[in-house]
Order: sequence, then C-alpha cells, then structure tokens
Amino acid sequence: KVLFLQGGGFTQFAMIPMNLMINRSAGYIVTGQWSKKAAGEAKIFGTVHELASSADKNFSYIPELGDLNIPEDLDYVYICQNETVHGTTIKTLPNTKGKTLVSDISSMFLSEPLDVTKYGLLFGGVQKNVGPAGVVIVIVREDLIRDDVLPFTPTMMKYKTHADNKSLFNTPPCYGIYICGLVFKWLLKLGGVNAIHRINQAKAKLLYDYLDGSKLFHGTVEKKDRSLMNVPFVTGSRELDAEFVNAATQAGLKNIKGHRSVGGMRASLYNAMPVEGVAKLVDFMAEFEKAHIS
Amino acid sequence: KVLFLQGGGFTQFAMIPMNLMINRSAGYIVTGQWSKKAAGEAKIFGTVHELASSADKNFSYIPELGDLNIPEDLDYVYICQNETVHGTTIKTLPNTKGKTLVSDISSMFLSEPLDVTKYGLLFGGVQKNVGPAGVVIVIVREDLIRDDVLPFTPTMMKYKTHADNKSLFNTPPCYGIYICGLVFKWLLKLGGVNAIHRINQAKAKLLYDYLDGSKLFHGTVEKKDRSLMNVPFVTGSRELDAEFVNAATQAGLKNIKGHRSVGGMRASLYNAMPVEGVAKLVDFMAEFEKAHIS
Repeated sequence: KVLFLQGGGFTQFAMIPMNLMINRSAGYIVTGQWSKKAAGEAKIFGTVHELASSADKNFSYIPELGDLNIPEDLDYVYICQNETVHGTTIKTLPNTKGKTLVSDISSMFLSEPLDVTKYGLLFGGVQKNVGPAGVVIVIVREDLIRDDVLPFTPTMMKYKTHADNKSLFNTPPCYGIYICGLVFKWLLKLGGVNAIHRINQAKAKLLYDYLDGSKLFHGTVEKKDRSLMNVPFVTGSRELDAEFVNAATQAGLKNIKGHRSVGGMRASLYNAMPVEGVAKLVDFMAEFEKAHIS
Repeated sequence: KVLFLQGGGFTQFAMIPMNLMINRSAGYIVTGQWSKKAAGEAKIFGTVHELASSADKNFSYIPELGDLNIPEDLDYVYICQNETVHGTTIKTLPNTKGKTLVSDISSMFLSEPLDVTKYGLLFGGVQKNVGPAGVVIVIVREDLIRDDVLPFTPTMMKYKTHADNKSLFNTPPCYGIYICGLVFKWLLKLGGVNAIHRINQAKAKLLYDYLDGSKLFHGTVEKKDRSLMNVPFVTGSRELDAEFVNAATQAGLKNIKGHRSVGGMRASLYNAMPVEGVAKLVDFMAEFEKAHIS
C-alpha cells in the first residue's frame, strides 16, 4: 500500500515504532546521522537493540550485515539505506532472519530500482528526488497496517487512518503531492527509474574517478559503500577545505560545504542535478588542485 | 511564541493534549464538527469534560459560555472559534475562570483582529486564508512550552522541539511557508487585518441581508452566532437544494454544496473571495428565487 502523508522523515521515526513495535522491541542498524536519530526516537517507545554500527570510524563504512545477532522478540529491523550526511549506501540488505525490514530511503528515493517486496515498510521524505518538503511517501505491507497500535498514538500517526482513507483523511499537502505527480511524469518520460539510475551512475563515476585520481581531494567513505547521491570529500586540511568552499561558492557551485559532523565538502548528486553540473564541479576541483599542488 | 509547523489541524488535536494535558483533564466546548473531532482525539490522552454543546440543534448556534461549570483540575478549555462546516463563530470568548484558553482559528485566521493575549494557545491550518495545505501556525504562551509532556510523545509533537529550533528542527514545508509570507505581505499592503475585516463584513452582509429577505433561501445559523467566513443556507427542500447546486455549478459558482452533516448549500467567503464573487452569487440566487417563486 502506498500512502502520501504530511510531514517528513522525523515524523516516520515515531510512526514506525508507534505502529509496529508491538513487542516494544526493535533492532536498529546505525550507519550515520539519520539511523542514529531514528534509533533515538524509537527509544521513547520501547527497547532498541543496536544490531550493528559504524560509529567507530565516524560512519565512513557499512558494517557486515550478513549474520546479525537478531533477538527473537524483535518487531522489526531498521536501516537508513542511504545516509545523506555520511555518504554511505547499504548495497546488500541485512539478513533479518525473517523479521520485518524497515528502510528509510529518503535520500535515494527514485534514484535507482528497488525491490519493494524485500521490505515490510519503506519510506522517504520527498524533498530530495521527488518534490517539495512536507510530504513523505510510505510503502507498507498490508498486514503491517493495524489497529492495535501503541497507547497514546494520535489518529494522524496511525498508518491505518491514512490507508483506510486513501491518504485523504485530512486535507493533504495538495500542492506538494501535485508536484510529486509532475516529477513522476517527468521521470517516466525520461525512461523511468532504470534510466535515471544509469544517469546517476555516470554522474557519480565522474566525481569518484576524479577523487580517486586526485592528489589533493579524497572521498571519506570506503569505496564499496559509496553513495550515488551524496559524496563527501576532504583535502585533509581544514584551512584548505574552507578556502575551497569559498572559492566554489563564488564560482556558483553552492551548498558544497559538508555537514559539521563530517567536515570538508559534500556534493549531492540528486536526480535534479544534471551531468553538466557534476562536470563543472570536477573541472573546478581540478583547477583548484592544479593551483594548490605543483 | 509563533511556530510554523507541518501538518494540519488534526495534528494539533493531538499535540495540544500531549503538551498541555498534564493533569489528564481538559474541557471542550462542542459547537460543531471540528470541536467534536478535537474532543474525540483528546480522549486518547485523558478525561474530556464537555463544558457546553450545541449538538441538540445540529450545531446551529453557540451555547451560553459566560458561566460554565469548570472543574478545578482542568488543564485547559478548548474551543473551535469558527466552525467551518456549521457556520458559527464564538463572538464572546468563554469565561474560563482562569484556565488556559485554547482556540482553533483555522477557518477565521487573519479574517478579523484577535487579541492573542486572551489565549494560552491559538492555532490555525493555513489552508483557508493564509497559504497552501500542509502548514499550521501555532501561537503559544511561552510558559506552556514545556519539557514534561505526556509519555510516548514523539519529538516532532513537542512544541518545545520547534520553539527551541525556531521551527527549523527538521526541513519545514518551505514552499508553503514561502506562500504564507507572500500572503502576509499582500495583506499588509491591503491595510492589514483591520482592512480585510471590513471587506469580510461587507461580503457577509451582502449575503446575509439577501438571505434574511429571501422567500426561498434561509440561513441555518442563529443570527447572533453567524460566521463571517462560512455561510450555510437551505431552501427547505432537498430536491430544490440539489437543483440549485447543479444550476450554480453550471453557472461557474463552484463548491457551493453544503457538508453532508448540514445539507443544503454553504458559501465560503474566505479572504481570497472578492466582493464581486459574493455579488455574483447573490444575483444568481435572486434569479433562481424569482424563477421558483412567483
């Protein structure tokens, strides 16, 4: 079932336990800022088992997820499949040993094909690849839409409320949903998710290949776990990072500064970014490198 | 403190008890569909005392609110100041005997001046007079923004979360808030809330004066309690009501059908409706009347 709901990812961080944490026990795989925040929110409602974490290396990699220790009473296993801030993607889904898999796909939504049958619940704030902030799309297996939610769950926080009313229980964020519709049509015309995936791979390859050959810049994430959408990189010098961010901003390459928890720079290659934009960034980086290393 | 939050009125129906119902006891004045729904939602969280109701006459009037029986342990007294569906407005605020007054002003937001100091909390979905659906504006007294909310309150449902972060805790519904800003500027240029109030009074007078003189149509609300924004009216005959709705729709007067709980017709005279629109409706009604009464 596909639901169009108001709000953003953080609302889902609460709705998921409120609707699914029947045994008051859930497993969280912590691979960056967003899965960490989701796990923190879930603690309001029950016991959170941290099944795996990459906090030891500042979330620069995805831990081994093939043989997790899964407690018997877990209601679900939660992942953030693409960590926006840290630039990692979970490319092989965890072995949940039969438990429901819940995934936050906000920053990779519609950037590549996903097999939705492998998940119990998928959700994404639309504000990266789909539409304006204020709408979240939830894809949830019918049997997980239940009436026996946790006590004190507001009507608006029950998936059942929205499923029973085809996402029209209240006045929905119409304008945002309308724009999502236009983006869906644009994407279909382009050739769908497969087509944009190929474009996204080309964009990411352009930047990662340059980074791998650069003597000045380097990516912060282990190669096997790199995101197609979010590419954090550093020079190794804070002063040089700041100089680059300033120069790039002046050259029209905006919002290139990395999140304070990672530092350095971060390029976001969402669906709306054309390959020309990435080429321009790489050109600029190469020139900057040439001027600073000789 | 003014907060710009995601969602609509129904989210507030839960946030209000979650944040304010410390003694798990609140008083609700039930004057129509929206206050009834708000009271129903509050029952999830504690005891709801129905302090007054106009359900006996299908919410066609505002009950006497000057000397309510207010239990000592009430956390707040709740009103829906303008009932969208039933077309009533509370013109004299209830005597809360010192208790915090909470008011839903969604369908009268910025339509007339209000003395915000008389309330503990005011809120309005913006989708009537202010902007596109998906944003709610909350005006709340600082001492009501607290950390000791009810258990199981999600982070996003705490007023404190948003107050501490200047409504930027998460990515807000930016586009909707931007449009609200344009509407504020438009309204200020027009002369502010006092100016639009005079225009709204003129629009409502046009329609109510016609209704009071009509032999075919009549308003469903007691004169003293009539809303400036929402004007329900009927012919007294279901068939004639349906005929009028059809004819009006064909003449370009859209969305004139009343809510099913009231029946008949409802004209909404929100800020965006020009006086010319109301004149056109009254002309059309007069012609229809002439054709049907001779």
